[in-house]
Amino acid sequence: MADFEGMWRDLAPIGRSASTGGYVRQPWHAAELELRAWFREAAAARGLTVEEDPFGNLAAWLPGHERGTEAVLTGSHLDSVLDGGAYDGPLGVVSAFAALDLLRERGVAPTRRLGVAAFVEEEGSRFGRACLGSRLAVGAATWDAARELTDREGVRLGDVVQGPGDAGDDGDGAGDGTGSGLLDGVATYVELHVEQGRGLIDLDAPVGVHDGIWPHGRYRYDIAGRADHAGTTRMEDRADPMLTFAMTALAANKQARVRGQRATFGRLDVRPGGTNAVPSQVTAWLDARAESDAELAALVADIERQATERAGRDGTTVTVTAESVSGEVAFDPALRDRLAARLGGVPVLPTQAGHDAGILQEAGIATAMLFVRNPSGVSHSPYERAETADCLAGVVALADALTGLVT
Amino acid sequence: MADFEGMWRDLAPIGRSASTGGYVRQPWHAAELELRAWFREAAAARGLTVEEDPFGNLAAWLPGHERGTEAVLTGSHLDSVLDGGAYDGPLGVVSAFAALDLLRERGVAPTRRLGVAAFVEEEGSRFGRACLGSRLAVGAATWDAARELTDREGVRLGDVVQGPGDAGDDGDGAGDGTGSGLLDGVATYVELHVEQGRGLIDLDAPVGVHDGIWPHGRYRYDIAGRADHAGTTRMEDRADPMLTFAMTALAANKQARVRGQRATFGRLDVRPGGTNAVPSQVTAWLDARAESDAELAALVADIERQATERAGRDGTTVTVTAESVSGEVAFDPALRDRLAARLGGVPVLPTQAGHDAGILQEAGIATAMLFVRNPSGVSHSPYERAETADCLAGVVALADALTGLVT
Repeated sequence: MADFEGMWRDLAPIGRSASTGGYVRQPWHAAELELRAWFREAAAARGLTVEEDPFGNLAAWLPGHERGTEAVLTGSHLDSVLDGGAYDGPLGVVSAFAALDLLRERGVAPTRRLGVAAFVEEEGSRFGRACLGSRLAVGAATWDAARELTDREGVRLGDVVQGPGDAGDDGDGAGDGTGSGLLDGVATYVELHVEQGRGLIDLDAPVGVHDGIWPHGRYRYDIAGRADHAGTTRMEDRADPMLTFAMTALAANKQARVRGQRATFGRLDVRPGGTNAVPSQVTAWLDARAESDAELAALVADIERQATERAGRDGTTVTVTAESVSGEVAFDPALRDRLAARLGGVPVLPTQAGHDAGILQEAGIATAMLFVRNPSGVSHSPYERAETADCLAGVVALADALTGLVT
Repeated sequence: MADFEGMWRDLAPIGRSASTGGYVRQPWHAAELELRAWFREAAAARGLTVEEDPFGNLAAWLPGHERGTEAVLTGSHLDSVLDGGAYDGPLGVVSAFAALDLLRERGVAPTRRLGVAAFVEEEGSRFGRACLGSRLAVGAATWDAARELTDREGVRLGDVVQGPGDAGDDGDGAGDGTGSGLLDGVATYVELHVEQGRGLIDLDAPVGVHDGIWPHGRYRYDIAGRADHAGTTRMEDRADPMLTFAMTALAANKQARVRGQRATFGRLDVRPGGTNAVPSQVTAWLDARAESDAELAALVADIERQATERAGRDGTTVTVTAESVSGEVAFDPALRDRLAARLGGVPVLPTQAGHDAGILQEAGIATAMLFVRNPSGVSHSPYERAETADCLAGVVALADALTGLVT
């Protein structure tokens, strides 16, 4: 198992912020390109054959089996949120390589094609669309739409990636949503991930299995008011969108708290953004999650209603746009039960986080997720953590799961 | 009076945003440099001699009187807030040139030195310090401190402007706060400005005189929490600084509203700023104003107390830093009464906005302000407006005031 720790040490400095200890690994920027180079080296060192689709998704295959033989894939992603943790994503990729090493040590000879994947832009932290790489890979997103996405600097994805049809190549139809072909023949996907909450802490277990993903969405609130001088305009003469936003943020928090759901405003754009000017416009992004599609819709509607009522009092207007909504995902129940049994009855819990595994499950691939205890209970944060012993337990669990799937 | 409208037309396109109709005229950026070039041309066309101090403040003098003869200065500033109006600043400079034209038409021969000024970075919209140019000119700010100010792009003021002492020039001591010398011999300053509220609308008058400036300050709120995953972290396990900010913004608004004072949060910085991450840090700037120094201190203390109480409930911490505080300013009472009488009993009202005139008054120059009706009632906004007839009435009033001062 020396390989796990060696690989982890290799990744530790890449994209790390010295000031926060967090990671900034945005897709197609220097740190993430270095992680891809590392992926190719790790695959080459193991004699795996690397395939990359036009969108930057990577798969590295053990030799000996051709495409189209009910392949089993494991892996995760390499990108991070802005100032995120080291584990969210890379733990699943490193554990995948380490599990393949363990299979080889154990003398397991896979009877099916087996590979390691790294999907691109899982966090949506650069182009704003979560799981973009896996969506493009399975055809749940079209390149014709994706190429027009822009990052915060205004850079167009189509100018970063040359996708199908971009250079006179009308390719395999991936531009119109039939997927990249990278996952052709993949019947099963297993993703290992660091836990992003406190479930395994409370249950005192190092490893668990997820049975599904809560539905979740991103909703853009465009709140328009009227710019004014911050000194000379009486409070009662203003139409200040910051007040509408502030009440909405508090209402969202309260609505989610009393229902045991989630509602977060973590991103905000204020215009003109001057200290001595009442803002003319606040744009804020709501991240909302609930245990079922109906409950998510009810949560989102209640927050919007409260925002609109407050806007009426503030003299502002609110426009809410659902930028992306992901429905409830149930991972393959037969696979889940088989894995939980093989792993000796580990805990089975849902997750509130979106994952590429959810996209693959929705696309008809039987999918399962393992997760590893996180003693901090926090993720998307420099404080995210996992004990080495728990990571190694995760590798063993993943190797056991794969053994059951490929023999 | 053809000159006023001609000058106004010349300025109209400079720094105008086609999308909002507002103006972006930040100091030492292209639009503002163009305005300075216009100032030099307007001065040259009138036979005025232009002086510029090391900080970029401009004064253009009528010929015939030497420095040190109890000079009278009139003018304002050329820079704008981000997406501000056309009038705030430039109206005072254009009206100053137009008033000089009117004096010449009337055959007035000034017995004292008379000039037109344009102070730099009045809004503080680039380097964060309001009235920076006039403060440096009178020595109320030192270049040793100012040169270290940075703009939003991290550009240091000292790298934009070569001030005293920056090139082996130990100059006239302006680096240590004794002023730039530009205002040596200036006994009287009259600034004309567009009104930034509704006082003259309510009184149905085109022109008024300000008797003083409310004290005001900028206070930076650094609210620190803990970054977390927006999906997996239960609401009750979070330390979300956005909630502390939201309650503070609402509390500030309410405190100012019930007291007839002003409190505004118009600028915000959220980190890491990801849609799916609970923020770790919110930095917000409070602009607060009240009718007296004691009342301002009480307002600011009450807002900070409410923020701190809420932070205790949110698990966050709040640190408040006063970035700049300007005390109450009373303009010269004798000059005010003389002007109001000469202008036929125009309304006399205070202003809640900071102005270079306040800095000059505090530095011992007898100062007065005229203001022109603004039918929108708003300023620091693309909606800011003044009727041409009211602007021309302002020019006549300014010319009358100057006639009384220089003959």
